[in-house]
Amino acid sequence: MKKTFETMFSLSANNMRASEIRELLKLLTKPEMISFAGGLPNPEAFPIEAMKPVVAHVMNEHARDALQYGVTEGHNKLRDAIAKGMGQVYGVPQSLSNILITTGSQQAMNLLSLILLSPGDLVLTENPTYLGALQSFYACQARVEAVPMDEHGMRMDALEEKLNSLRQRQERPKFIYMVPTFQNPTGVTLSRERRERLYALLQERDLLLIEDDPYGLLRFEGETVPLIKSLDQEDRVIYLGSFSKILAPGFRTGWLAAPEEIVNRAGLAKQAQDLCSNTFGQYCVFEALYHNILFPHVKEIVALYKRKRDIMLDAMQKYFPKGVTWNKPAGGMFIWVTLPPALNALDLLGKAIENNVAYVTGEPFFPNGGGQNHCRMNYSYSSDEAIVEGIKRLGRVMEEQLREKTNPQKLAPEGMEIF
Amino acid sequence: MKKTFETMFSLSANNMRASEIRELLKLLTKPEMISFAGGLPNPEAFPIEAMKPVVAHVMNEHARDALQYGVTEGHNKLRDAIAKGMGQVYGVPQSLSNILITTGSQQAMNLLSLILLSPGDLVLTENPTYLGALQSFYACQARVEAVPMDEHGMRMDALEEKLNSLRQRQERPKFIYMVPTFQNPTGVTLSRERRERLYALLQERDLLLIEDDPYGLLRFEGETVPLIKSLDQEDRVIYLGSFSKILAPGFRTGWLAAPEEIVNRAGLAKQAQDLCSNTFGQYCVFEALYHNILFPHVKEIVALYKRKRDIMLDAMQKYFPKGVTWNKPAGGMFIWVTLPPALNALDLLGKAIENNVAYVTGEPFFPNGGGQNHCRMNYSYSSDEAIVEGIKRLGRVMEEQLREKTNPQKLAPEGMEIF
Repeated sequence: MKKTFETMFSLSANNMRASEIRELLKLLTKPEMISFAGGLPNPEAFPIEAMKPVVAHVMNEHARDALQYGVTEGHNKLRDAIAKGMGQVYGVPQSLSNILITTGSQQAMNLLSLILLSPGDLVLTENPTYLGALQSFYACQARVEAVPMDEHGMRMDALEEKLNSLRQRQERPKFIYMVPTFQNPTGVTLSRERRERLYALLQERDLLLIEDDPYGLLRFEGETVPLIKSLDQEDRVIYLGSFSKILAPGFRTGWLAAPEEIVNRAGLAKQAQDLCSNTFGQYCVFEALYHNILFPHVKEIVALYKRKRDIMLDAMQKYFPKGVTWNKPAGGMFIWVTLPPALNALDLLGKAIENNVAYVTGEPFFPNGGGQNHCRMNYSYSSDEAIVEGIKRLGRVMEEQLREKTNPQKLAPEGMEIF
Repeated sequence: MKKTFETMFSLSANNMRASEIRELLKLLTKPEMISFAGGLPNPEAFPIEAMKPVVAHVMNEHARDALQYGVTEGHNKLRDAIAKGMGQVYGVPQSLSNILITTGSQQAMNLLSLILLSPGDLVLTENPTYLGALQSFYACQARVEAVPMDEHGMRMDALEEKLNSLRQRQERPKFIYMVPTFQNPTGVTLSRERRERLYALLQERDLLLIEDDPYGLLRFEGETVPLIKSLDQEDRVIYLGSFSKILAPGFRTGWLAAPEEIVNRAGLAKQAQDLCSNTFGQYCVFEALYHNILFPHVKEIVALYKRKRDIMLDAMQKYFPKGVTWNKPAGGMFIWVTLPPALNALDLLGKAIENNVAYVTGEPFFPNGGGQNHCRMNYSYSSDEAIVEGIKRLGRVMEEQLREKTNPQKLAPEGMEIF
């Protein structure tokens, strides 16, 4: 008789939650599907031609090391280049010993969760927040409380209020997690003023912040805002970076920049997790930096994604029915759509998929519930034509749903609520 | 004031243990050091010339996919090739849905620990056992009890006795973990008879086994023994495989073969851990299989490592003092050395390092203590000349230590024990 494993799984396994996004990624394989659901970069944004000689160079000159195990903390030349690059690009120079290379910044988030979160610990996040981070927190059996945001990012009055009410309960968050620039899922950026206020709050309340920044360099317009990390004189900010959105995700190379104590402990956790990240990819990424392929290329990605954002915004303007609203993010990969109260994003998604167009519903990004009338729309992945066609299909589905919901004759027998 | 983090770490962080091997790997960077300490393949064993056109092909023909995110469970073509390959090579054909690609088999071990082990759960291992597995078990706050082994692997009488005594305590191990072929650290292989007895015990006692097999194809001589997985009709055996020792570790590509329930749950844990393993490496590994580079190449590795093993055995015979003994593994990467009672492997290591030769002491491989008079010697990594020179140096250090320990005049003032 075959075994079943349901009763054998660990406490932590039973606390893991499937990602809706992952299930939706499977839809991408259907060729007729237009998907705004993933968070994938566009393959057109990969510097394939520029990387061909780089990859060949790694095989020709460095294969003995690039195909070998590496030290857990990462390829030292890459760590050093990142440490210096953070000075040149963001004005926050690091030492090599402050950098840990990770298997994408997802692993950085996961390692930080492992070393900082005991079961029952509290994390504060933006509301909504990045789903992959929530999965890491939940896997450690942590609790999450989300702080409201508006078009300028997390509301600092709401954060202060939250911290006060926690103090009354004699509770402290283990850390605050935030994607402050071109956030996933909303595309929103925390304003410069709020960054300063946030850092002052971290000092006043003796708190730690994780600044997750995979999209920061993908700015289409407007003034650059400084990293929160650039305000930090007291080791209160752990920075997460990634080459996935600015070079290519396939090398799975991200990093965290943190005090040495954190790097060492996260390195220890990483050692048990995968010994080291793939050496070959780290060599390719280092050579892309060394041969100055990365930064000129980022300009091309920015131009590409700005065009795609504008195409999606124009199509929404043209095809979405009255009552549906959306924001205009200044960078990144996502537009955040708000449906009128008559529409529910999950119901709508069912109909959308029938019409071969997909997005991600807002709900899973809200750790404390809510968000039923939001959709995250990715514009980076699809072709220009597919963006227009997909938004057109979606507009049609929205209109049909709106008509049905406001037709009491049709709805009454099904017992649905009528607005 | 800078923060300190000591008090902020999680319960699980405080349960992580540093690997002695990792600290020792740092010694490899000293150019004059001859190190038998690591578990590294020899770069000469990497099929660099054969892989150059393969890597170029991936960039030329598959870059848009190979540089993109992949599904968490792995590149489907590679999963399928592994599933079929397990039939062709081991007679245990799998379905694609039974294969999860991991960031080396270390991640496979880590994911299985995460999904199966709650704090306090019990794991049975060989005594000694692989250190990286222990790190995964400890990170999940599991307990480990080790079962004695001899030159034919884990003693089945001792396992049965252990299971009986556990039954009396009303305890059950969550699983048995084993490296049955060319084990790390001892190089020992579980005999065919014991494999059959082990599987019968798994059935009798309703137990699960993790068969970790990174070295199985590196057989120099003697008859191939079947995988324990090949005896399994009841989903009792989870198999871990890796391309690190037979192709190259730098691609960080391993896998687990398990019932779908396990693959799905481990995939969910993997999603929170790193979203997916590096896609580029998976494409390279698939192409190496597809273009039939792997298996002809394994023959070359076997010839290379057999030569190196023989060189090390000859040098030991020539240079090690009387009373030091060692085994002759039929494959893999390690020789297991037993020191006479007068010597302690850790004391000896200090002197060895002063003489620019290093190995790993046995002690950390023994989860319940002991092993002070064992050394694990890796012969795969060093050049032929370095093996001879290193063993010569080590022999000299052993002789000096033996002389000191048997010279009471010298030792008495330091208060050391005299045999």
